[in-house]
Amino acid sequence: MDRDPILLTPGPLTTTLRTKLAMLKDWGSWDADFNALTARVRQGLLQIIHAQDSHVVVPLQGSGTFSVEAAVATVVPRDGHLLVLDNGAYCKRLGKVATLMGRRTTIATRPEQLPVSAAELAALLQADASITHVGLIHCETGTGIVNPLAEVAEVCQRLGRGLIVDAMSSFGALPIDARQIRFDALVAASGKCLEGVPGMGFVFVRKAVMAGCEGNSHSLAMDLHDQHQYMERTGQWRFTPPTHVVAALAEAMVQYQEEGGQPARLARYTDNCRTLVDGMAGLGLRTFLAPEHLSPIIVTFLAPSDERYRFATLYAEAKAQGFMLYPGKLTAVETFRVGCIGAIGHTEMQQAVDAVGRTLRGMGLGPA
Amino acid sequence: MDRDPILLTPGPLTTTLRTKLAMLKDWGSWDADFNALTARVRQGLLQIIHAQDSHVVVPLQGSGTFSVEAAVATVVPRDGHLLVLDNGAYCKRLGKVATLMGRRTTIATRPEQLPVSAAELAALLQADASITHVGLIHCETGTGIVNPLAEVAEVCQRLGRGLIVDAMSSFGALPIDARQIRFDALVAASGKCLEGVPGMGFVFVRKAVMAGCEGNSHSLAMDLHDQHQYMERTGQWRFTPPTHVVAALAEAMVQYQEEGGQPARLARYTDNCRTLVDGMAGLGLRTFLAPEHLSPIIVTFLAPSDERYRFATLYAEAKAQGFMLYPGKLTAVETFRVGCIGAIGHTEMQQAVDAVGRTLRGMGLGPA
Ligand SMILES: Cc1ncc(COP(=O)(O)O)c(C=O)c1O
Ligand SMILES: Cc1ncc(COP(=O)(O)O)c(C=O)c1O
Repeated sequence: MDRDPILLTPGPLTTTLRTKLAMLKDWGSWDADFNALTARVRQGLLQIIHAQDSHVVVPLQGSGTFSVEAAVATVVPRDGHLLVLDNGAYCKRLGKVATLMGRRTTIATRPEQLPVSAAELAALLQADASITHVGLIHCETGTGIVNPLAEVAEVCQRLGRGLIVDAMSSFGALPIDARQIRFDALVAASGKCLEGVPGMGFVFVRKAVMAGCEGNSHSLAMDLHDQHQYMERTGQWRFTPPTHVVAALAEAMVQYQEEGGQPARLARYTDNCRTLVDGMAGLGLRTFLAPEHLSPIIVTFLAPSDERYRFATLYAEAKAQGFMLYPGKLTAVETFRVGCIGAIGHTEMQQAVDAVGRTLRGMGLGPA
Repeated sequence: MDRDPILLTPGPLTTTLRTKLAMLKDWGSWDADFNALTARVRQGLLQIIHAQDSHVVVPLQGSGTFSVEAAVATVVPRDGHLLVLDNGAYCKRLGKVATLMGRRTTIATRPEQLPVSAAELAALLQADASITHVGLIHCETGTGIVNPLAEVAEVCQRLGRGLIVDAMSSFGALPIDARQIRFDALVAASGKCLEGVPGMGFVFVRKAVMAGCEGNSHSLAMDLHDQHQYMERTGQWRFTPPTHVVAALAEAMVQYQEEGGQPARLARYTDNCRTLVDGMAGLGLRTFLAPEHLSPIIVTFLAPSDERYRFATLYAEAKAQGFMLYPGKLTAVETFRVGCIGAIGHTEMQQAVDAVGRTLRGMGLGPA
C-alpha cells in the first residue's frame, strides 16, 4: 500500500533504486573524483549520438528550459534571426525564450496533429535570407509527435543555416547520429529517457560553432561558451554543480549501457507504448495523433466525450492505484497524456491500463 | 577506510544521511503531494527570517549564481543603475552578472580584508542620484568576511534605494530579520547553511517590489516574477523542478528546526570555527582576516611561507585522512580555506586540524 506510485509523466519519471542510491554520497565539487565523474558523463553523452569528433557537450545546472535558453543565447548571435518550427507547446516556449532575450524570432506554426514540414521550411528559408538559425523540437512532448529531424537538418545544411534541436524528450530513446545529421546545437536533460533525476541539462555544440560563440550570451549563468572554456581548463563546473543529480545521471547511464543502449531503450519504450495504446483502445480511448505520428515517449489520449468524465477523478483514482497520469496540454480538445518512459516495462503499463479501466467503469464510462 | 570524506567546503557540504535518504523517492512534479512539499519549504524559508508579512519567496532551479542573476534581472528595471559593494570574488561576480545583462553597473571596490563601509555607501549614494539599487554580499565566501548588512540596509532605506542581498553562505546561520532589515531581494540556496544538497536557489522579494517587476527580465528562465505568478496560481514550478533536491531540502529544514533553528546552527558553526582557528593557531597557521572580521562560515588561512609547502599535497593528504579542504580564492597572497558549515561538529573539526597537523609535519613544516 505504501509503495511509491509509478510516474507515467515525461520527466520527472520513475528511476531505478540503483540510480537513486547513487545520491547517498556528498561529493566535493572541486575534487578530482567529482571531475572524473563529470568527464565520464560528458564522454558517455557524446558516445550516445556519435558526436565525439564533431561536437562538445556542455552540462548546465537547472531544468531543461534553462539549457534551451542557454543554447539560443550562446549559439545565435545578437543580430541573428531564429525561425522556430512550431507544432506545439514546447515550440512556442522556444519562441518566447528567443524573443524575450532580444533575438529576432519568426514562428512558423503548423497544426499540432501534424509534423513540421521540411518542404515548407525550405520555402521559408529561400524566401528569407535573413534567417540565420532554425529551431526544431524533435519530439514535441505537448502532443507526443515526432518531427522529421533528418529532413529538417538536411534542408538547413543545404541552405546554409544553423540548426538548434530541442531533443529533451527524445534523446537516448530515438536514434540520433551526429555523423549523419548536422546540427549546431542539440539540447537534452538528465531526467528524461536516460532515466536520471531532474536538475541539469546538457547541450551538444558543434566544435566549429562553439569557437565563434564568445560574447553572444546576455547572461553569465547561461553562457555555454564560458561554461565550456572553464570546464576544459579546470575539469570543473563554473558554479556549484548539482552533485547528487550528476552522480545519479552517471549511474543511470551505466544501466543504460547495460540494457543495450539506445536500441534497447527504444525497444522497451515501444513495447510500453504498444501495451498502452492497445489497452486504452480496448477501453474505448483513442489517441489524439494518427497512429503513424505517435511516439514511444508520451501519448495524448482524447478524453471520453461524456459529461460524467472528470480528469481530476481519473487522476486521483489512478494515483490511488499506484499510477500518476499527466494532464493534457492542448487548448482546443480535452485530452490527457500518459508517458511511456522511465524504469518501467510491459507489466507496469498493463497495470496502468487496468487502473484506468477500473476508474472509468467507476465513473460509469464503460467501453462503448 | 571507505568512509566518505567530510567536506570542509562551503557548499556542497556534508549532509546528514537522513537528508540524503529523502532522495530515495521519485515525485511527480505535477502532483498535489509535491505541491504541498514546495509550499512547506517556501513557508519554512519565510519563517526563518520572519518575512511572512513583508516578502514572498521564489525558488529557482540551478545553482546559487542563477538565483543571483534572476534577482538582478527581475528586481532591477532595465533602466536601473546597480551599485555593487565589492570586497571579494562573489561581489565581482555580481557586478559581472549585472553588466552582462545590460544593467548600468558601478562597482565600488574596498580591500578584501575589510568589510564594506556603510558610511562610504552613504557618500556614494548622495553623490549619484542615478543609482537605483545597491548589491551587497552578506558573507563574502571568497575570504569569509561578514559585511554589515544592517548598516547598509539602513543607509539604503534612508536614501530611498533598493537593496539586493546575496546571503548565499550566511542564510540560516547568521541572524537576518526581515522585520528589522529592509531589503528588496535576498538570495540563498539549498546546499549551504540549511545543509541540503545543491541544485536550487531561492529569492525573497519584497511584496510591493514584486508587484512592479513584470517585464523586467530579459530571460524567461530567470524571470522570478513569472515563476512567482505561476506558482501562486498553480502551486507548481513553471519548469521541471529538481524534485529530489527539493525533497532533501525539506528534510534538511525539519532537522534545522529540530536542532533549534538559526541560533542553534550559529552556535554549532561558531564552535566549529573556534575549534578550527584555535587548532590551526597551534600549528602556526594564521587567518587572513583579523579575528574581529572572521565568520563562522568559512575561514581563510595564510599558507605557510615555506617553499616546501604545496597546497596540492596538503589537499591530497588531508583527503586521504578523510577531510576535503578548499583552495584559496585570493590572487595577492597564497591561502587556503576551510569551511565550518555542514553536518559536522567539534569532533570532526578537531580531527581535521589533527590531519592538517600531521600533513604539515610530513612536509617538514612543524609549528615554529
Ligand atoms: C521537448 C521539451 N522541451 C523542453 C522541455 C522543458 O524542460 P524542463 O521542464 O526541464 O524545463 C521539456 C520538458 O518536458 C520538453 O519535453
Ligand atoms: C556569497 C556567494 N554568492 C554566490 C555563490 C554562488 O553560488 P553557486 O556556486 O551555487 O552558483 C556562492 C557560492 O558559494 C557564494 O558563497
